[in-house]
Amino acid sequence: MSQIQGLAAHAAGAELLSFKYDPGELGAQEVEIAISHCGVCHSDLHLIANDWGISQYPFIPGHEIIGKVKAVGAEVRSLTVGQRVGLGWQSNSCGICEWCSRGMENLCPASEGTCVHRHGGYADRVRANARFVIPIPDALESEQTAPLLCGGITVYNPLRTHGVNPSSRVGIVGIGGLGHMAIQFARVFGAHVTAFSTSAGKEEEARALGAQNFVNSRESKAMKEVAGSMDFVLSTINADQDWGVYVQTLRPTGTLCFVGVPPSPVSVHAFPLISGLRSISGNPTGSPYRLKEMLDVAARHGVQAKTEAFPLSQANAAIDKVKKSKVRFRAVLVN
Amino acid sequence: MSQIQGLAAHAAGAELLSFKYDPGELGAQEVEIAISHCGVCHSDLHLIANDWGISQYPFIPGHEIIGKVKAVGAEVRSLTVGQRVGLGWQSNSCGICEWCSRGMENLCPASEGTCVHRHGGYADRVRANARFVIPIPDALESEQTAPLLCGGITVYNPLRTHGVNPSSRVGIVGIGGLGHMAIQFARVFGAHVTAFSTSAGKEEEARALGAQNFVNSRESKAMKEVAGSMDFVLSTINADQDWGVYVQTLRPTGTLCFVGVPPSPVSVHAFPLISGLRSISGNPTGSPYRLKEMLDVAARHGVQAKTEAFPLSQANAAIDKVKKSKVRFRAVLVN
Repeated sequence: MSQIQGLAAHAAGAELLSFKYDPGELGAQEVEIAISHCGVCHSDLHLIANDWGISQYPFIPGHEIIGKVKAVGAEVRSLTVGQRVGLGWQSNSCGICEWCSRGMENLCPASEGTCVHRHGGYADRVRANARFVIPIPDALESEQTAPLLCGGITVYNPLRTHGVNPSSRVGIVGIGGLGHMAIQFARVFGAHVTAFSTSAGKEEEARALGAQNFVNSRESKAMKEVAGSMDFVLSTINADQDWGVYVQTLRPTGTLCFVGVPPSPVSVHAFPLISGLRSISGNPTGSPYRLKEMLDVAARHGVQAKTEAFPLSQANAAIDKVKKSKVRFRAVLVN
Repeated sequence: MSQIQGLAAHAAGAELLSFKYDPGELGAQEVEIAISHCGVCHSDLHLIANDWGISQYPFIPGHEIIGKVKAVGAEVRSLTVGQRVGLGWQSNSCGICEWCSRGMENLCPASEGTCVHRHGGYADRVRANARFVIPIPDALESEQTAPLLCGGITVYNPLRTHGVNPSSRVGIVGIGGLGHMAIQFARVFGAHVTAFSTSAGKEEEARALGAQNFVNSRESKAMKEVAGSMDFVLSTINADQDWGVYVQTLRPTGTLCFVGVPPSPVSVHAFPLISGLRSISGNPTGSPYRLKEMLDVAARHGVQAKTEAFPLSQANAAIDKVKKSKVRFRAVLVN
């Protein structure tokens, strides 16, 4: 095969530079995808900056990939050349551990990230194990669907896992790249949705996305008004907050679930957890079968990311705009 | 009816003094119990000291009560005079809210505590709504069963709610009044049980109660050895700990559940919750049907509190010994 051409970070926090690598022989269980679209996820920015201490340079970021199958390995039966497919955060897993056996590959201790210690989707092609390459339903547009492959599943999976349903009252904290998809999905589950944001300017957008209620989380009076009312609050933000106040928004048996990572520890009193059977939890992306399920739900219910497209060659400009929170709501690189 | 004779706290932290009150007419749905046994629970000590800011004086503590039905109200059909019964933390609830309707009376916002703003079980008699007066199976000894009515259900309910089963690995933090019952119940569920304690001297007792493993939680090496191994960790202690270390003992999807109330906020990083679908939760006692279920389980599987009996007249001495953690494991006042 010919070399793969992409844009790589060569040092922590560096601008992406043109980069080529030889992918070697296609593995028997692998699929090569000719990339048409790749979302810019906050995780890419963290990996470029080595915020998690796991980055190895040079590497090509990108893990919200849509494209067409260019080649399949000798043992791949599930996909055919030319088919439109997607690839998210995870590109492989051991396939035999408890978590893989239970359809929870996202918890596999040997999970392989699409752009962790390997090259991702800011490129013309990418490879992955066929189990993680997901067909895209015809009804979905590639540009608006690419961000679902990581950001979308990250918010869909916890709504599904925690049994959100038409009787639920759901809070979404942070109306950005993740939150704007979370509002849409929560509405699809039939829930009553309250958007929490520190910026009053987000109210109109949150309501347009489907939120029936908006709370400016800087206003303690507004927070008190929703105390004890939420079944499920999903935090999509990467900032510190007074999480005890969010625990107070929960009804008995309610859950505060993190998908965004606050920099400081989460600190809450045990008493409201005990007295009201409340809990605090987290969620990491989702498994391949959940990705398929989410894409089917998105196709049938019209869920899509609101995107701003950039040519792949302008990836650095896109990253800069994402960093400055000036993209509403999700940047997508187009080949 | 004649006056009820008991021992009451007349001010925060004061010694209990002899006290009589007129219970008035027996309500149509009420039951009066002639008390034979009453456990001394840490919650009694907190109420006496007004640690929760909700105490009103004078009041008679006590909410782990066993005795015989002395009288029933005009509308009570479920119980008969002379029957042996128990009464725990809760003595009444609204009966019509969502939580009462769902068999989760312990979450009722109008829940009435047996000795909160009313007089409890350090007395010759006590009254409660018939729904909260639970028949005691014949196989159970009153002295060893009284502590199950609050302490026992507090540890049984979360094991049951969180689906502990014979495949589970369960950690019990703190081998005291609650923990020694938690070990026994976790074994009855078939779980593999690890006892966590800061005192190495508890190992022999923990193993005698059924724990298959003992970890001295002061030893970071021992804590690391059990990292990632627990499905469910139940903390029964009222002290601060590095809770992040306990989160690290959890397998993916595992839960750290509080029934003891640490004085400081619980502070943990969100990342291990997110990456491993882990959660932190709490549990408040249990509902009447769970109390009945627990007593049936205790009778069939031989679960009982290890107790030290004191005559009711020596309640102050019993309280003092509980405060000093010198009772192994549960003090019971006997009339």
